Amino acid sequence: MDHLIHILDLVGTGVFALTGALAAGRKRMDIFGVVVLGCVTAFGGGTLRDLILGIRPVFWISNTCYLWVATLAAIGTYLLARRYRPPAIGLMYIDAIGLAVFTIIGFQFTINQTQNYSIAIVMGVTTGVFGGIIRDVLSAEVLLILRREIYASASLCGAALLALLFNLQLPRSLSVSVALLTTLIIRIAALRWNLALPIFQLKSNREETRN
Amino acid sequence: MDHLIHILDLVGTGVFALTGALAAGRKRMDIFGVVVLGCVTAFGGGTLRDLILGIRPVFWISNTCYLWVATLAAIGTYLLARRYRPPAIGLMYIDAIGLAVFTIIGFQFTINQTQNYSIAIVMGVTTGVFGGIIRDVLSAEVLLILRREIYASASLCGAALLALLFNLQLPRSLSVSVALLTTLIIRIAALRWNLALPIFQLKSNREETRN
Amino acid sequence: MDHLIHILDLVGTGVFALTGALAAGRKRMDIFGVVVLGCVTAFGGGTLRDLILGIRPVFWISNTCYLWVATLAAIGTYLLARRYRPPAIGLMYIDAIGLAVFTIIGFQFTINQTQNYSIAIVMGVTTGVFGGIIRDVLSAEVLLILRREIYASASLCGAALLALLFNLQLPRSLSVSVALLTTLIIRIAALRWNLALPIFQLKSNREETRN
Repeated sequence: MDHLIHILDLVGTGVFALTGALAAGRKRMDIFGVVVLGCVTAFGGGTLRDLILGIRPVFWISNTCYLWVATLAAIGTYLLARRYRPPAIGLMYIDAIGLAVFTIIGFQFTINQTQNYSIAIVMGVTTGVFGGIIRDVLSAEVLLILRREIYASASLCGAALLALLFNLQLPRSLSVSVALLTTLIIRIAALRWNLALPIFQLKSNREETRN
Repeated sequence: MDHLIHILDLVGTGVFALTGALAAGRKRMDIFGVVVLGCVTAFGGGTLRDLILGIRPVFWISNTCYLWVATLAAIGTYLLARRYRPPAIGLMYIDAIGLAVFTIIGFQFTINQTQNYSIAIVMGVTTGVFGGIIRDVLSAEVLLILRREIYASASLCGAALLALLFNLQLPRSLSVSVALLTTLIIRIAALRWNLALPIFQLKSNREETRN
Repeated sequence: MDHLIHILDLVGTGVFALTGALAAGRKRMDIFGVVVLGCVTAFGGGTLRDLILGIRPVFWISNTCYLWVATLAAIGTYLLARRYRPPAIGLMYIDAIGLAVFTIIGFQFTINQTQNYSIAIVMGVTTGVFGGIIRDVLSAEVLLILRREIYASASLCGAALLALLFNLQLPRSLSVSVALLTTLIIRIAALRWNLALPIFQLKSNREETRN
């Protein structure tokens, strides 16, 4: 189980580095900017989690293997994407894997550290989404993550479900698999059928547009 | 006294979560984005303070009550603001309470940790204003906080005054109340009479506009 | 040697505070915004390094002398730049000093903490460039640092060279001087002759512009 989680963790790292590298490409950054944005996207969520929980040093200092995976994924993306047009929608499905994996890993790590379910849910979501938020801030994109599509909400559902399953004392490996798949399915369903939560529209804005 | 400070702390948390939720509303985020931006605004300043001072874990992990206050305030804002048009100017007055409370709490906390007045002033201002700065970065607003209106400067005055009063060995509760009210009054006066510090205009810019 | 490094460190702090203050000026911030942006630019890289490595508290809390240098440099810039038009290109050469000094200091500090060359290279670059990145995010500039000009790449070359020289067991002071000058020369050469790395252009973008 731990072995599978570790492999998924590296997959998530590579996938997020890839999305960061592509965001850098859209902003016409050079190879170095591509690697930096790739690493920031891959490490941002977990770094913020470790800082907030007071883990020192952060995970990618303790184990440099993450650094190599993210760097190679970013450089690989740089080299390949110059030649082949990346399929935009396929990428979003791959990104969903990173979201699901990082949410579950963040939850599990935090529950081991703090034994507190509400903190673990918050940290699961933080690990899952903050890499992408920092990527969007640095590449000056509009923050899509907090907008309409069910992205962070999928992460929240997965983390909350995992809290419930842990609470029910189900076997750990079963709980993790179910929560991981649920997060993935919610996110992919949202992409596939364009699902969205109601957005928050201020009354004043609505009246402005009415006039 | 500590009791009053704690209540004010929760009030400040709720007020900042409210301003974060409204910023999310202006950017048409969904309920989850509203909660995230509310929490980030409410916790941003104190989290940065705790990280820089090396307090671990940060305050809202040690005491989850802040998490509940911020989340409920953000959700409440989401529900209410869909129905009632929030009075923009009234909100800025309420926000001033958060600014004053967080500045004083940040100063007091830091002076207890470090016994260093200049660090405590810097951390008071950090606690007071950085939540709002992160909110503006994430909602892609122009950073009003660092612009004309006396906002961060009110926080600086309050923290510096508290340093002076502590140094004069006045009773702690009196010092805190005076500094709190002074910060609040400076900020509200700036709002009421449109006060501003001279802005920093580069010579080159001025010449460009002259031609 | 350590004495020289310490003086260079303060020079780098002052120089980066100056560039932060000028960025604040371009955005017409008030004196307080100028000081905040100056300090954030001067401390951003080193603060992120200390947080990631788990050094507590961060360097400018342990030694308030940095705080004074950055504040005075920002205020001095505010006062002088209102009167004299700052020579834009001269500033970029001065900024190159900050980049070179902070890269070397970040590397040296990290190698003493972790004895790991790849971490030290990453932290050297982080110390050198992240202050500028945070400055650009807060002043809502396009992130030039990650774009075309060889900026972060100069930092990477300097840190990698220092790793090599340390590995060859050359005298410490010689290694540091050579790596410092190399970083400086690469950056200045890039400025002087407009050198740049190939940018990462997505295939889809290229086709869009072709049509």
